Amino acid sequence: MPEDRPFISLTTDFGDAYTAICAGVVHTIVPAANVLVLSDEVTPYAIVEGALLLRQALPYLPRGVHVGIVDPGVGTPRRPVAIATVRGDVLVGPDNGLLPPAAERLGGAVRAHELRNPDFRLPQVSSSFHGRDVFAPAAAHIAAGADLAALGPGLDVAGLTALDIPVPAVRDGELTAAVLYTDRFGSLITSAEETDLTISLGPLEHGTVLETSWTGRDGQLRSARVVYEATYGRVPEGAGLLWIDSSGLLGLAVNQGSAAERFGLGAGGTLTVRLAH
Amino acid sequence: MPEDRPFISLTTDFGDAYTAICAGVVHTIVPAANVLVLSDEVTPYAIVEGALLLRQALPYLPRGVHVGIVDPGVGTPRRPVAIATVRGDVLVGPDNGLLPPAAERLGGAVRAHELRNPDFRLPQVSSSFHGRDVFAPAAAHIAAGADLAALGPGLDVAGLTALDIPVPAVRDGELTAAVLYTDRFGSLITSAEETDLTISLGPLEHGTVLETSWTGRDGQLRSARVVYEATYGRVPEGAGLLWIDSSGLLGLAVNQGSAAERFGLGAGGTLTVRLAH
Amino acid sequence: MPEDRPFISLTTDFGDAYTAICAGVVHTIVPAANVLVLSDEVTPYAIVEGALLLRQALPYLPRGVHVGIVDPGVGTPRRPVAIATVRGDVLVGPDNGLLPPAAERLGGAVRAHELRNPDFRLPQVSSSFHGRDVFAPAAAHIAAGADLAALGPGLDVAGLTALDIPVPAVRDGELTAAVLYTDRFGSLITSAEETDLTISLGPLEHGTVLETSWTGRDGQLRSARVVYEATYGRVPEGAGLLWIDSSGLLGLAVNQGSAAERFGLGAGGTLTVRLAH
Repeated sequence: MPEDRPFISLTTDFGDAYTAICAGVVHTIVPAANVLVLSDEVTPYAIVEGALLLRQALPYLPRGVHVGIVDPGVGTPRRPVAIATVRGDVLVGPDNGLLPPAAERLGGAVRAHELRNPDFRLPQVSSSFHGRDVFAPAAAHIAAGADLAALGPGLDVAGLTALDIPVPAVRDGELTAAVLYTDRFGSLITSAEETDLTISLGPLEHGTVLETSWTGRDGQLRSARVVYEATYGRVPEGAGLLWIDSSGLLGLAVNQGSAAERFGLGAGGTLTVRLAH
Repeated sequence: MPEDRPFISLTTDFGDAYTAICAGVVHTIVPAANVLVLSDEVTPYAIVEGALLLRQALPYLPRGVHVGIVDPGVGTPRRPVAIATVRGDVLVGPDNGLLPPAAERLGGAVRAHELRNPDFRLPQVSSSFHGRDVFAPAAAHIAAGADLAALGPGLDVAGLTALDIPVPAVRDGELTAAVLYTDRFGSLITSAEETDLTISLGPLEHGTVLETSWTGRDGQLRSARVVYEATYGRVPEGAGLLWIDSSGLLGLAVNQGSAAERFGLGAGGTLTVRLAH
Repeated sequence: MPEDRPFISLTTDFGDAYTAICAGVVHTIVPAANVLVLSDEVTPYAIVEGALLLRQALPYLPRGVHVGIVDPGVGTPRRPVAIATVRGDVLVGPDNGLLPPAAERLGGAVRAHELRNPDFRLPQVSSSFHGRDVFAPAAAHIAAGADLAALGPGLDVAGLTALDIPVPAVRDGELTAAVLYTDRFGSLITSAEETDLTISLGPLEHGTVLETSWTGRDGQLRSARVVYEATYGRVPEGAGLLWIDSSGLLGLAVNQGSAAERFGLGAGGTLTVRLAH
């Protein structure tokens, strides 16, 4: 950067109109910008969901400035930040855990600055729409070539707020993981990765039957047998499966159906997996 | 205009596919256009919601051609229009009240023309999809440099259909305002501005407790005490607040929750606010 | 092709984030690409809905590469394909019936190739996200000028999987058609075209009253009298109508309301239409 047509992505829980206003602010400052809305549909206030999306998606996007805003603390003293990564991207958003997992996937955070300089904000900053007034203008100026040091004081990257994700419990013969979010197809995505599964249950071949159990909304312990498979299409329509999703996380799905509905589970729930006997 | 990469925004109640078809028509006529969908999710037929969104958003977008289509009268003799503004934008859409509030925010309407010339429409005009067949081609040709006068006869800007918004009742010690729409977070946005609040209740400091009352869906008069605050994050999670939203309108919200659900209110409802004793 | 700013459209049932990842992959390979998301909201797994959308929309989009992905068979041996059309577009997606109706509207399929060459895929191909790993890179390389023959072996276009759409039953005085999908406004779109209506009921003037009947979710036969009209706005608010939608298909709608709710019908249902006496 600067490039002829700098790339800027936006990821928010704002819905389409408020995200597009941020895009408009970017275009006003950098008319040639190539702005991609990665998502404007993150579940409102769901920092973990947004952080996992950014972590999964940004490696597939061009090098550029990536704005992430899921910001229940807007208007409070949480810090607005810009984080430079080893790959050469800059991540812009609130310092609330949303950005560091993505920064790590892009090689790690090189340096970070607080967005304090009013020259890189809109003239009037509202108390509730920092996406428009603080983050979008900062991203545009960075994409246009502004040095991070001009935007505000440097921060210790080790001091950035870390994401609060429940660590899976990996025991011999049993894996317990939190459900982090429900995707568009109703599939339940957990905090466990493939290696967690291997450590607790041993190497698993596709086709292995697993027993999964959880506590339902009615407080009853429930369980189901499902196959560990590579993808939906390998099990019959309406059948459940455990699989490693495209972001590398263990998920529970129903082929052409909703696992969230079938199993009565969602974000905040917990899933235990064992080999079936 | 014309510019190298003319800016065109689209705001509709069409959903994504039909809005994207309009964008496709624009790109077919002006391949270099920079097309931004401001929203394709306006509540179907909700002219007031669309008009307030355009009024709030367009000042933050680059100067360009802005298409707004919330058009319950498509296929009836309501006029398709283009309105030039003082800032240099052109607003394109149906003459049903959707565009004038935004034109006013952009400095006011300078002149308006009816979109009648078939040379600036698609060869075949359907009866139900004027976004594709009339508005998108007109916007593209205007962005490419066509003079408004070529599109059809001039109209008296004073004769454009005005938006029908209920005016808040500002009394000494009491403010009553209509709920205009519910936003993505479930917050209720009213027709009152900050000045209405000040005139009726006097200057308010953040932290002041207000009493708000409304008639619920069951016909019962209900009331709640909520704090007047600058932003969600200033009240506890789950607490209600009255605040001035980023568009300058008085809203009733719940921090990290839905005011529409909590208070059983939505568009068409009415809210009364007093100082709490 | 290649052009300065090649046009690529994306149509998926992925939701916004996974579709934007595909757009990111395209931009990584072809930074100058003009990427339009036609829809990311196709009903999950609804091949017919996606196919009809592509058929209706692509004629209005610029000539380019159009990616369509509604792919319940991802991870199974269904073939990924690219289909060149007479108009000069290339359609990219799974060989499951999604693409041929659009190809036909673009003049017909000229030739087709299977997407097998790993040089035009991402280095790692997951089992569940071929949009990102197979289809988006193929589309980008084609837009950048790659010959289809380089992507994989040629296929007989007559052997492409055809779309499985129920053919309307056209009888003298009676037309029976399947409901193919429900649009954003709750309108029910059927498999019948205007000519089916004319053949079964004779030439119809707008304003004619028709009797429509269907079997409700409770198994009861139901019927309603509705007017055949050009567009919503021609009937009173809340009234039903039969009309030919902008894609040329017979639909059942309610002016400013939802026909799906009013009549308790949706995709998979069947509608019979007669002249009312």
